[in-house]
Amino acid sequence: MKLNIAVLPGDGIGPEVTAQAVKVLKAIAMEFNHIFTFNYGLVGASAIEKTGNPLPEETISICKKADAILFGAIGNTSYDLNPDAKIRPEQGLLGLRKTLDLFANIRPVIAYEEILNKSSLKKSQIKDTNILIYRELTSGIYFGEKKLSDDGKKASDICEYTQDEIERIAHLAFKAAHSRKRKLTLVDKANVLESSRLWRRVIQKMEPQYPDVKTNYMYVDKAAMELIINPKQFDVILTENMFGDILSEEASVIVGSIGLLASASIGKNHAMFEPIHGAYTRATNKGIANPIASILSAAMLLDHFGLDDEAALIREGVDKSLKLHITTPDLNNKYDNISTTKVGDFIEDFINHPDETNLN
Amino acid sequence: MKLNIAVLPGDGIGPEVTAQAVKVLKAIAMEFNHIFTFNYGLVGASAIEKTGNPLPEETISICKKADAILFGAIGNTSYDLNPDAKIRPEQGLLGLRKTLDLFANIRPVIAYEEILNKSSLKKSQIKDTNILIYRELTSGIYFGEKKLSDDGKKASDICEYTQDEIERIAHLAFKAAHSRKRKLTLVDKANVLESSRLWRRVIQKMEPQYPDVKTNYMYVDKAAMELIINPKQFDVILTENMFGDILSEEASVIVGSIGLLASASIGKNHAMFEPIHGAYTRATNKGIANPIASILSAAMLLDHFGLDDEAALIREGVDKSLKLHITTPDLNNKYDNISTTKVGDFIEDFINHPDETNLN
Ligand SMILES: CC(C)[C@H](C(=O)O)[C@@H](O)C(=O)O
Ligand SMILES: CC(C)[C@H](C(=O)O)[C@@H](O)C(=O)O
Repeated sequence: MKLNIAVLPGDGIGPEVTAQAVKVLKAIAMEFNHIFTFNYGLVGASAIEKTGNPLPEETISICKKADAILFGAIGNTSYDLNPDAKIRPEQGLLGLRKTLDLFANIRPVIAYEEILNKSSLKKSQIKDTNILIYRELTSGIYFGEKKLSDDGKKASDICEYTQDEIERIAHLAFKAAHSRKRKLTLVDKANVLESSRLWRRVIQKMEPQYPDVKTNYMYVDKAAMELIINPKQFDVILTENMFGDILSEEASVIVGSIGLLASASIGKNHAMFEPIHGAYTRATNKGIANPIASILSAAMLLDHFGLDDEAALIREGVDKSLKLHITTPDLNNKYDNISTTKVGDFIEDFINHPDETNLN
Repeated sequence: MKLNIAVLPGDGIGPEVTAQAVKVLKAIAMEFNHIFTFNYGLVGASAIEKTGNPLPEETISICKKADAILFGAIGNTSYDLNPDAKIRPEQGLLGLRKTLDLFANIRPVIAYEEILNKSSLKKSQIKDTNILIYRELTSGIYFGEKKLSDDGKKASDICEYTQDEIERIAHLAFKAAHSRKRKLTLVDKANVLESSRLWRRVIQKMEPQYPDVKTNYMYVDKAAMELIINPKQFDVILTENMFGDILSEEASVIVGSIGLLASASIGKNHAMFEPIHGAYTRATNKGIANPIASILSAAMLLDHFGLDDEAALIREGVDKSLKLHITTPDLNNKYDNISTTKVGDFIEDFINHPDETNLN
């Protein structure tokens, strides 16, 4: 297969982890006789620095021409501490999501057997957890009108949803549930928000179309609690943009490190794959960033094109690295100087020689 | 001291748990020679049933005349599943908060030594956690304009804040931090929301007024994760209405049961005290509801009037009940038929005879 992949490393640890994912994809191409080409683009704070624009036209054009996009991370502490900044790194990411209409953000939360003890949660609580979060990504309070009054004393954001926006992601989530444990949980705040009541109404109306999926409804405050005390009750979670942001990052505690969580952002014509962690500025270029979230995002990219064996091989490599403690410090006590690059090298080696790779 | 207390038991388990708190307050009045009078009002689904109105005028008038309000819980599954309902139990609670201008909701999160093992989190993770959450309660997306288009296909909610609304609760939170571990964390989503940027700007400007308080800033998605993996980093958390709802319910996992979390909702002229748990309809009248959140809310009521010894005695009774496993099934394996009423009786007895109470 020929794939043209746009690579947007972004800020902070983005470039280091993305480099490992690219390395792994190259090994896959070699092993399976695919032709993957990589075209790099600027985004985020580093794009602002070089072009004044967090999402340069050229980047958009690279992405539009690509079959898929591999995204690193954006963000920078100096912007975080400056609420007055008019141009912000996040606009790069949000702009991409909107421009490419990447409406469904899919975030798997899997408790890996090999590192159950790394979680803050008790082992018995999390063992066998396997949740798929469907987060709406191009609407809601992220993209509704924003206002700041002239005197700077009043600010507002609108959370708006349409039936169509809800339906298109809901169909994907229902289908995913159908092919999994057949349970869908809509998370909303329908006892308070009009937009949540629309979500609830639309999903209730869709239920008969997916008769073998058991649908239930949970308020977001309760979901934030249940995700920790009983994560195994969930199969597919469907939710709006802001709630999905909060719950998916929270869910990383089940896995044991946010450095393991991958995601796919899917639209009708485009697809982007990115770790859910951010730019983690403090860790930049220290070799301590976990590349696995980015590498697993590359596996999701391969899934997207039906390259199942290829994706499976990456995941085997990841499992093996976890098992052998070939991991960055967020997960390691045993060998605590395994660097970002070395983890990538190990998984690359595994792909090249799946039967031979061992501790050396 | 003479206190006129409005009691709004509400729905579900509200009446049972509130009855225990009232019992405990009566024991305190007796022991310390206070005169507490109790006036009951209707609210929520039970008020709709009897009057058609989730917040009858009479209830408002009882509350306005009272020195403090003890609130139970509202909500009912039949409304939860009907997004079309125009009259809803929650309007009773939200209406009260708004009418009485109860702008600061204070939610303590304490890992009780006696029940550290009840949490889903590892003991080492939570031991000594003591967080005070200040949640803004009368503005934000809860109270901004709500719209549903005529064809029912588009819905929206506005999240709006003013500088004044932020400042008044921030002063309370800064003062609380000053009298505690001197650390304040503002939780927001300033990288995306205009309203969050206003919060961040206002708090940054207030920092110099509280020079001994270390202020830091955290995005809500990260906070949802950090609350679980490193809860001890927090002292006072300040946040807007919706984020506070989510994070405080999530934080209940640290404590081990949501049945232990009390709260105070404070305004300039009124104060209301309520457990953070909801109506828990399924448990109604089974004697399994944990009354401690309501009893600790009564202790916060006493705090509010400077009745420190009285509040301390209630807390001692609660600690003792936890230590002796005189607890409802959410916390108990050992004696699993201790009922709501018996837990209340135990704490009442303890207040009457603090030196004698034992297992019998
Ligand atoms: C960086 C930020 C704008 C982004 C979001 O809030 O969506 C991030 O937290 C994420 O989850 O991808
Ligand atoms: C019942 C509901 C409206 C309420 C809220 O969201 O504020 C509750 O969850 C709470 O936290 O007191």
